[in-house]
Amino acid sequence: MSASPFNDDAIAAVYQAIHGRRDIREFIPGPLPEGLLARLYAAAHAAPSVGYMQPWRLLHISDPALRGALVQLVDEERLRTAAKLPSRAAEFLQLKVDGIKSCAEVIVVALMDGCEKHIFGKRTLPEMALASAACAIQNMWLAARAEGIGLGWVSFFDPAALARLCAMPTGAKPIAILCLGHVASFPERPLLETLGWGQRLPLEAVVFENRWPEDAKPTPTAY
Amino acid sequence: MSASPFNDDAIAAVYQAIHGRRDIREFIPGPLPEGLLARLYAAAHAAPSVGYMQPWRLLHISDPALRGALVQLVDEERLRTAAKLPSRAAEFLQLKVDGIKSCAEVIVVALMDGCEKHIFGKRTLPEMALASAACAIQNMWLAARAEGIGLGWVSFFDPAALARLCAMPTGAKPIAILCLGHVASFPERPLLETLGWGQRLPLEAVVFENRWPEDAKPTPTAY
Repeated sequence: MSASPFNDDAIAAVYQAIHGRRDIREFIPGPLPEGLLARLYAAAHAAPSVGYMQPWRLLHISDPALRGALVQLVDEERLRTAAKLPSRAAEFLQLKVDGIKSCAEVIVVALMDGCEKHIFGKRTLPEMALASAACAIQNMWLAARAEGIGLGWVSFFDPAALARLCAMPTGAKPIAILCLGHVASFPERPLLETLGWGQRLPLEAVVFENRWPEDAKPTPTAY
Repeated sequence: MSASPFNDDAIAAVYQAIHGRRDIREFIPGPLPEGLLARLYAAAHAAPSVGYMQPWRLLHISDPALRGALVQLVDEERLRTAAKLPSRAAEFLQLKVDGIKSCAEVIVVALMDGCEKHIFGKRTLPEMALASAACAIQNMWLAARAEGIGLGWVSFFDPAALARLCAMPTGAKPIAILCLGHVASFPERPLLETLGWGQRLPLEAVVFENRWPEDAKPTPTAY
């Protein structure tokens, strides 16, 4: 494969997907385009993985009762989270944290069992299995965005309870409930920014030269 | 932003970046294209983050002595890893695990200090801060690929030692040494596959319907 087969339009398309991607919680009805799920699975499976372990497992949720159980699970965690955010609980409870009920398709992503056996590239950083799976999800997110389909990554759940619901073996761990579907539009800015939950940090606050600056300000906590 | 401003060529470009991205350890000389680093920083900073916490910190390593210390750090961990892989140590030691010496630019990626204060979307999954930072790295990886530039994610290091070298505050944690530079070509297949370290799993082994199949085979361990 040559080093640069991308022309200017193709390069621009990749940046457009990166900058136009949003975490979606509001969907409009309609089935996904034909073949999209298969393309997203292939995109996820093309992700990098530490030591080539390919730790991601994708569970397509087509059972309506199971989807209903996920709705319940997320709502329970939403309330528990609010209880831990006393100063912002009311504000938090006004936020919609998922679109599981209204999205076209739901995919649960989990780390496989047996991750701990892999040493290559993760002896000192066992969490690299999760990093690989997150890259797989980002691939799906960008591919969906390019195809005009919204995706939301929901992490409000008790992982042990979700593992039980999906009959996961010991050692496997769910990391995401992904909601996929059509959207009225992709918001110009992240929803949590528009709603005043947090602010985009200036780039200078996240890019340093060689060493962490002594005068680096602590990041404001959004909770 | 309309739901689908991507034409077929633009969609194809995004998939081409996803499927053509490789973990690069062999670089050829030459400076990065003008402005590329700034575009990659912006791509990273456009990543999703749980509760909008933006936990990624990017340290551009321009100090040659510091780059030399990273080379040393990775080599030490390479030998420690080999010692943990008795059955495949010789095979492992023949692998090149990084291109820190020969690449054009090095970026260390770290999680910010104070991640534990953030509850939103990570009360039950504190590792979601790392997931967000991994998405930021995947954005850089795909953008670099589109621009014809290779990137390698090196995770062979003692994180505490790297944190000290880069004067990171308590609570911050390095997760990646990224190597960036020109490549002779992007390999058709992942290097670890070509070298027989691991095999690409069939898609059926990673995509399930609703529940984990009882007869799912355990993944062969590559160590």
